[in-house]
Amino acid sequence: MERMRLLVGGPTTEWTDELTNGQLTGPWAAADRGALRLLEMGQVPVLTVGDFDSMTSVEREETLAKLTRVVSVKPEKDETDLELLLTLVEKDYQPESIEIYGATGGRIDHLLSNIWIFTEPRFKDIASKVTLIDRTNQINFYYPGSHAIQHTPGMDYVGFMPLTPVTGLTLVDEKYKLTDWQGNPYSFSSNEFVGDINHFKFDSGVVAVIQSRDLNGRIKD
Amino acid sequence: MERMRLLVGGPTTEWTDELTNGQLTGPWAAADRGALRLLEMGQVPVLTVGDFDSMTSVEREETLAKLTRVVSVKPEKDETDLELLLTLVEKDYQPESIEIYGATGGRIDHLLSNIWIFTEPRFKDIASKVTLIDRTNQINFYYPGSHAIQHTPGMDYVGFMPLTPVTGLTLVDEKYKLTDWQGNPYSFSSNEFVGDINHFKFDSGVVAVIQSRDLNGRIKD
Repeated sequence: MERMRLLVGGPTTEWTDELTNGQLTGPWAAADRGALRLLEMGQVPVLTVGDFDSMTSVEREETLAKLTRVVSVKPEKDETDLELLLTLVEKDYQPESIEIYGATGGRIDHLLSNIWIFTEPRFKDIASKVTLIDRTNQINFYYPGSHAIQHTPGMDYVGFMPLTPVTGLTLVDEKYKLTDWQGNPYSFSSNEFVGDINHFKFDSGVVAVIQSRDLNGRIKD
Repeated sequence: MERMRLLVGGPTTEWTDELTNGQLTGPWAAADRGALRLLEMGQVPVLTVGDFDSMTSVEREETLAKLTRVVSVKPEKDETDLELLLTLVEKDYQPESIEIYGATGGRIDHLLSNIWIFTEPRFKDIASKVTLIDRTNQINFYYPGSHAIQHTPGMDYVGFMPLTPVTGLTLVDEKYKLTDWQGNPYSFSSNEFVGDINHFKFDSGVVAVIQSRDLNGRIKD
């Protein structure tokens, strides 16, 4: 399958307008509360992971009756909903790209978990297909090598975030250059694209690239 | 001075009710748009850092006329507003504790920057005094040693987040224990306090402790 969209349970206030307005088509997979929200929008996820412990019992019964395939996380496995969801999506559907919505906002321990998943060796292959998307951010994940990145229309900034210790980080042709940097996790934020496609490379570690925009500024200006 | 509060420019939707309702007293220091918001609430920050580049020119003029002490970040110094603000606060006021509001929500490159600042050696001493606060999260920062942590009323979860490679991470008496863990940045989320005070320790690295709650669940249940 070409593309799959995942909805996890973060607050709807962080959703993109396209998602909020029901303009995004499936196939969808969901974690926990994300499934309820898809059903409310008339979309039935092909796969749902979760024990629905953040729902009321009424919500839970109604939701389970409408879903096709529901898998529960085994508490003793010490695995998050999103980890199990990604594992099943990869095993059963092998999409070429994966867009993840609802992974941001609210609890910051969840956000960091949703980002750091992609530094785990077992998710290395999935990481390169994944985009985390919310109304102000688009996050992609990179392993060592030379990479071309494409500017997403409407995004003002691009940040380079070593998520682990990295070596040899070089920003080749962005507005602010960097040569052969090494260090612990850090946020090189507020860089900008020069043209539509730019390049960066590094020798070891995992790097997140975050394209973002400043909604405050946009609303006021 | 006993306590200082800092307001930086993140979205007001992430503020605590106490901040939104104007119940938090100063002394305040602010970065950029945070200063405007304090003025709107009738509070004049004792110190403001920023070039106000996210404000309109009208906002900028009105704001500067009302502020007492404004310091601009030198672009060539490659320093964020919050880094300069923390440096000046420590140099000129030496508060015993620092509460930071407005550091979360919106741009995730900013959020990660606001968290990872406290892994920089030059902010090691400040890190132990700092609490990042928003409506669903309270974040504290720890360096190697044995630590007692106190449960904040209203928070349901406690997460342990190695922000750098760590060794010897041991969760002594929380609901879910951990012994002598080592590894790269990771999110041990959704742990819980047992009683009011719990303990953890580690041998190297920097760990953030995030107390959080699930607003979705609370609203619906």
